[in-house]
Amino acid sequence: MNQIIETILNHRSIRKYEDKPLTDEQIEVIVRSAQAAATSSYVQAYTIIGIKDKEKKKKLAELAGNQPYVEKNGHLLIFCADLHRHQLVAEMENVDVSQALETTECFMIALIDAALAAQNAALAAESMGLGICYIGGIRNKLVEVSELLQIPIHVIPLFGMTIGYPVHNSDKKPRLPFEHVYHEDTYQSNSSTLKAQLEEYNKTIKQYYAERTHGKRQDTWTSQMADKFSEPKRLYMKDYVQNQGFNKK
Amino acid sequence: MNQIIETILNHRSIRKYEDKPLTDEQIEVIVRSAQAAATSSYVQAYTIIGIKDKEKKKKLAELAGNQPYVEKNGHLLIFCADLHRHQLVAEMENVDVSQALETTECFMIALIDAALAAQNAALAAESMGLGICYIGGIRNKLVEVSELLQIPIHVIPLFGMTIGYPVHNSDKKPRLPFEHVYHEDTYQSNSSTLKAQLEEYNKTIKQYYAERTHGKRQDTWTSQMADKFSEPKRLYMKDYVQNQGFNKK
Repeated sequence: MNQIIETILNHRSIRKYEDKPLTDEQIEVIVRSAQAAATSSYVQAYTIIGIKDKEKKKKLAELAGNQPYVEKNGHLLIFCADLHRHQLVAEMENVDVSQALETTECFMIALIDAALAAQNAALAAESMGLGICYIGGIRNKLVEVSELLQIPIHVIPLFGMTIGYPVHNSDKKPRLPFEHVYHEDTYQSNSSTLKAQLEEYNKTIKQYYAERTHGKRQDTWTSQMADKFSEPKRLYMKDYVQNQGFNKK
Repeated sequence: MNQIIETILNHRSIRKYEDKPLTDEQIEVIVRSAQAAATSSYVQAYTIIGIKDKEKKKKLAELAGNQPYVEKNGHLLIFCADLHRHQLVAEMENVDVSQALETTECFMIALIDAALAAQNAALAAESMGLGICYIGGIRNKLVEVSELLQIPIHVIPLFGMTIGYPVHNSDKKPRLPFEHVYHEDTYQSNSSTLKAQLEEYNKTIKQYYAERTHGKRQDTWTSQMADKFSEPKRLYMKDYVQNQGFNKK
């Protein structure tokens, strides 16, 4: 196993950091790594906002659900889906791109582009001995986040990423069984096979939590997912996304 | 600069491969690397389909726009957004998740999860001396692709990834200026600054193509983007995605 695969397999979310900011050089390497990711038809449909302002970090931590590590870290990046520059392209080249930008297809392109870039950033940071945590919590309150960061139309903040020097190492969480996630030639949709794999996975997860909580925590993966999805969340998202000019047709 | 960052910065799409299939061991390392990526609230909302069947590869190459490297490579992965297993969870746990799965928020989660996993797969492959290319072209014909791969409801094939032993090294394509993509504390939306950065970038791109085509190719980044976005594409996507049970509310 090479060093890169070792770093990849060694990922865990870090939620406590030393009080030591990243240098501008570190930030630049991380962002340039993000930019090196593949991009659909060269569109580069994302922007990364780095938050240094302490008041803004504090406010973002509140909006993301009062997670202290969103405020206290080495640096905080906000990854945005961005078609704003393509609107500027239209002005520069005197063409109308408004119909294209509003499509579900373009929404998908921008989300995928931003996520590919983010994962490069995560690995670059981890390769430097830093820890990271993705912050989906900013999607709790995107209207407020957008106001705070002065987000224009055709831009959507998708998630944050905290980066910093880890204070402690957390545990690696076991993933779904390989065979459940990797299929060959066709999607293997046999329900009893899939459910049996999930039952097997539940045993792994139960043991994982039991070991870490001296038997106190008993939940399984399917119980967690049932909790998570039993109520629809962030129902404002559809309107928000469309108001930002995405996903309309 | 460490080895990981070197690999990240050295990325280029490889579109010609030796006629040498990946071993099952290589495939497993790549998929397990994908699985190690962060996932929103542990949902792991993706499935990866590896295509070995030659006829299927050939058909997928046709559907993706007749790119020969979709057929001829060491392996072909199809990354799918997947909430199908969460529907099974609902049956296992006796809860109703149908409202949640249909939200735009869940659509976003699944796309981001799948893309984070894919970028890990890409880097794992590249770290092993393999080349990769993302294949957005499968989104040309998702109805046909879904039929071919027997995709159930709550699953969307998002993109392919060809992997293999590179026959030649392609050139690294210059990215947007760092300052254009990385903002600090707020989104820098001053149009004249952004346009000036794009003009500067156009010069870089013009030179890049001129050098590689002995002056024949003259286009810029903004002209490429204007071409790409002057007509809306893949307009069937909104209905397709909703028919698969995503992005409805």
